[in-house]
Amino acid sequence: MTVGSTVDNISIRLRRYLTNEQPAESDMEVVTTKLTLCLTGDTQDVLVQNLYLSPDPYMCNRMRETFDSYFPPFELGKPITGLGVSKVILSNHPEFQVNDIITGFTSWETYSVIKGGLGIRNVSHFDVPPSYHIGILGITGFTAYAGFLQICSPKKGEQVFVSTAAGAVGHVVGQLAKLTGCRVVGSAGSDEKVELLKTKLGYDDAFNYKTQSDLKATLKRYFPEGIDIYFENVGGKMLEAALDNLRVHARISLCGMISQYASGCGEGIPNLIQLIWKRAKMQGFLIGDYMHLQEEFINYMVSHLKDNKITVIEDVVDGLENAPGAFVRLFQGKNSGKQVIRL
Amino acid sequence: MTVGSTVDNISIRLRRYLTNEQPAESDMEVVTTKLTLCLTGDTQDVLVQNLYLSPDPYMCNRMRETFDSYFPPFELGKPITGLGVSKVILSNHPEFQVNDIITGFTSWETYSVIKGGLGIRNVSHFDVPPSYHIGILGITGFTAYAGFLQICSPKKGEQVFVSTAAGAVGHVVGQLAKLTGCRVVGSAGSDEKVELLKTKLGYDDAFNYKTQSDLKATLKRYFPEGIDIYFENVGGKMLEAALDNLRVHARISLCGMISQYASGCGEGIPNLIQLIWKRAKMQGFLIGDYMHLQEEFINYMVSHLKDNKITVIEDVVDGLENAPGAFVRLFQGKNSGKQVIRL
Repeated sequence: MTVGSTVDNISIRLRRYLTNEQPAESDMEVVTTKLTLCLTGDTQDVLVQNLYLSPDPYMCNRMRETFDSYFPPFELGKPITGLGVSKVILSNHPEFQVNDIITGFTSWETYSVIKGGLGIRNVSHFDVPPSYHIGILGITGFTAYAGFLQICSPKKGEQVFVSTAAGAVGHVVGQLAKLTGCRVVGSAGSDEKVELLKTKLGYDDAFNYKTQSDLKATLKRYFPEGIDIYFENVGGKMLEAALDNLRVHARISLCGMISQYASGCGEGIPNLIQLIWKRAKMQGFLIGDYMHLQEEFINYMVSHLKDNKITVIEDVVDGLENAPGAFVRLFQGKNSGKQVIRL
Repeated sequence: MTVGSTVDNISIRLRRYLTNEQPAESDMEVVTTKLTLCLTGDTQDVLVQNLYLSPDPYMCNRMRETFDSYFPPFELGKPITGLGVSKVILSNHPEFQVNDIITGFTSWETYSVIKGGLGIRNVSHFDVPPSYHIGILGITGFTAYAGFLQICSPKKGEQVFVSTAAGAVGHVVGQLAKLTGCRVVGSAGSDEKVELLKTKLGYDDAFNYKTQSDLKATLKRYFPEGIDIYFENVGGKMLEAALDNLRVHARISLCGMISQYASGCGEGIPNLIQLIWKRAKMQGFLIGDYMHLQEEFINYMVSHLKDNKITVIEDVVDGLENAPGAFVRLFQGKNSGKQVIRL
C-alpha cells in the first residue's frame, strides 16, 4: 500500500430496497473497484483504511426506500455507510495525521475518503482496543449510558428488565444497572446467552424468551412486585408483557424495536392504558440528542474499564466480504455482545 | 329535613359487574332506604346532603370486577362512590360546621355519612357556583392543569392537539394552551361541539372525527408541520394517527383512553416506533400524584376565572334518578364540557 499506487477497493452495496421482510445477505453485494491512493484539491479530505465496521440494527431502516426519519435511505449502487474505526492513510485535514486512528461515519469498503474530515474524531490517544470505539466507547455504549441513566433515572434497589440483554446495548445496560445498585433481569434468545448474562455480565437473573409460552407470566415470575425500569430493545409481544407488569411510576426507555424493524412496524400493542394506571413514562430517544454528554460518558466508561468494572463482549466477523452476513446475524439474534466486522 | 327525623335516602347502586361492554343504565339501579338524620358515637363523622355529583369516565373501570389498579372495584349492593359537592347537615368534625359546603369523595345518594370526614375539604369560602368544585376547580380542571402544564411543558408557539376537546378536561386544556401561547386544534364527536370549540372555547381549529375517513390524513392537514403536544383522552385509532404526525421531541400526555375503557382495552397500536424516530415521550398520569400542586392550581384557576380568561361549560342533568343516564352519556359522547348531576 504505497501512496499514489492503485489498489483494489472492495465495497458492500445495497442491491435493492427492502419492503417488509428481514434483510438477507442477497440484498447486498460485494463490488470491487480500483482506487488510486491520493487526495486532490485543497479540500480537508481524509483518506482512511477501514479497520472495523459496525453493523447496527437501525441501518435496516435505511434499507427501506420509504424511510423518512432521522436518516435518509441508503443510495443503491453506493457503498453502505455506517460507523467504523479507521487508520489515516493520507490527510489534508490539520486535525488528522497519517497513522492516526479515527472513528465516526465511514463506508463499508476497504478504503474511504472522508469528505472534509466530517463526522470523525481522533481516538489515537486511547489505550484500548480500537474496536471499542464502535462498541463500549462508541454509539452502543453511549446509547446504553444515556438511555438508561438519563431517560430512566435509576435508583438503588429498583427492578430493571432489559430485552436483548446480551446484545450490543443490552449487555452494557445490565452492567450499568448493577453499578447503580439495581436488580436486573435480562431476556435473550438462547440458553448460551442466558448463561453469559448470569455468569459473565452480572445479571441477577435471565431467561430465554424463545422457551417461554406466556411472556406475561414469565415476567410476573421474575418480577413479582413489578418492573420499575424496562429498557426496550425489541417491541411487540415483549413490550406488551412488560406493560402488564409495570410498577407505579415505571419508566420505559425505548432504545429500539428490532422485532418491528424486520416486520415493517406492524405489531399492535393493546395495553397502553397500563401507562395511565401505573402513571408510567415511555420515552423514545436517539443518541444524537445527547452529544453534550459524550465526554462525560467516555470518562465514565474509560474509568470503569480501567477498574475492570465493565466487561466487554464482542462478536467479531472477519473480512469485509462477510459484512452482509454479519449484518443479517443481528436480525437472526445470533450475535452476543457487540457485532463487529474486522477488515 | 329536621335533624333526628327519618327520611327517604335515594341511592344509585351497581347491579352487576361489566365485562367488556359499554356501561348501560340498566347496570345500575335506584334503591330507596330509610335514614335517620343523626350521628352517633364519638367519631368525627359528617352527615351531608349531596348537591352535585360528578360522573367521571374512570368510574367505568371500577365497574369491572377484575379491575385491580389505583382503585378497587365498586361493591355490588352499595351506593356508587365518586366526587361531589355537598352541604353539611350534622358534623362531629371540628373542621366542618352545619351548612358548610364541602367537596370530595361522597356517595351517589341523597344523604351520605362521610366517615371521619375523610377525603373532603371545606369550600364554603369560595365565591363561585358550587358545581365548579367538581369541574373547573375540581379534578377535571386540575387534571387539565397538571396533565398539560406539568407533563407537556408547553412552550409558546407550539402545536397542540386535544382529543375529546369539548369534554370535561379537554375544554379546559384548550384554554390553557391558548393562555400559554400555543396553537391548539381539537377533535370532537359532533358539529355542534366543533362549533363550541371554535366560537366559545378559543380553539384555533377543530374537527368532527366522526366525519373523517382517514384520521392520519386529517391530522396531517391540521398539523402540516406536526404535533408538539398531544393531550390524549381517547386512545385507539386517534392515538395511532397522532403518533404518525408527531414532531421531533413531541410529548403525549395520557390522560385517558375512553374508547378503550368501553372496549375492554383491546385496540392494538402498531406504530409506537414513531416514539423512537421522533424522540418523543408518552406519559400516563393520575391527578393523585400532583396533590402538592392543588393550592397553586386553585389560585391559578380562580384568578383566571375572575379575569374572565376561562370559560366554563357544564352539562347539567337534574335528579339523582337520572344519574345512571348522565353517566352513560359520557360513553356515548353526548356531554359538552363537564357532565354534572344536580340533586
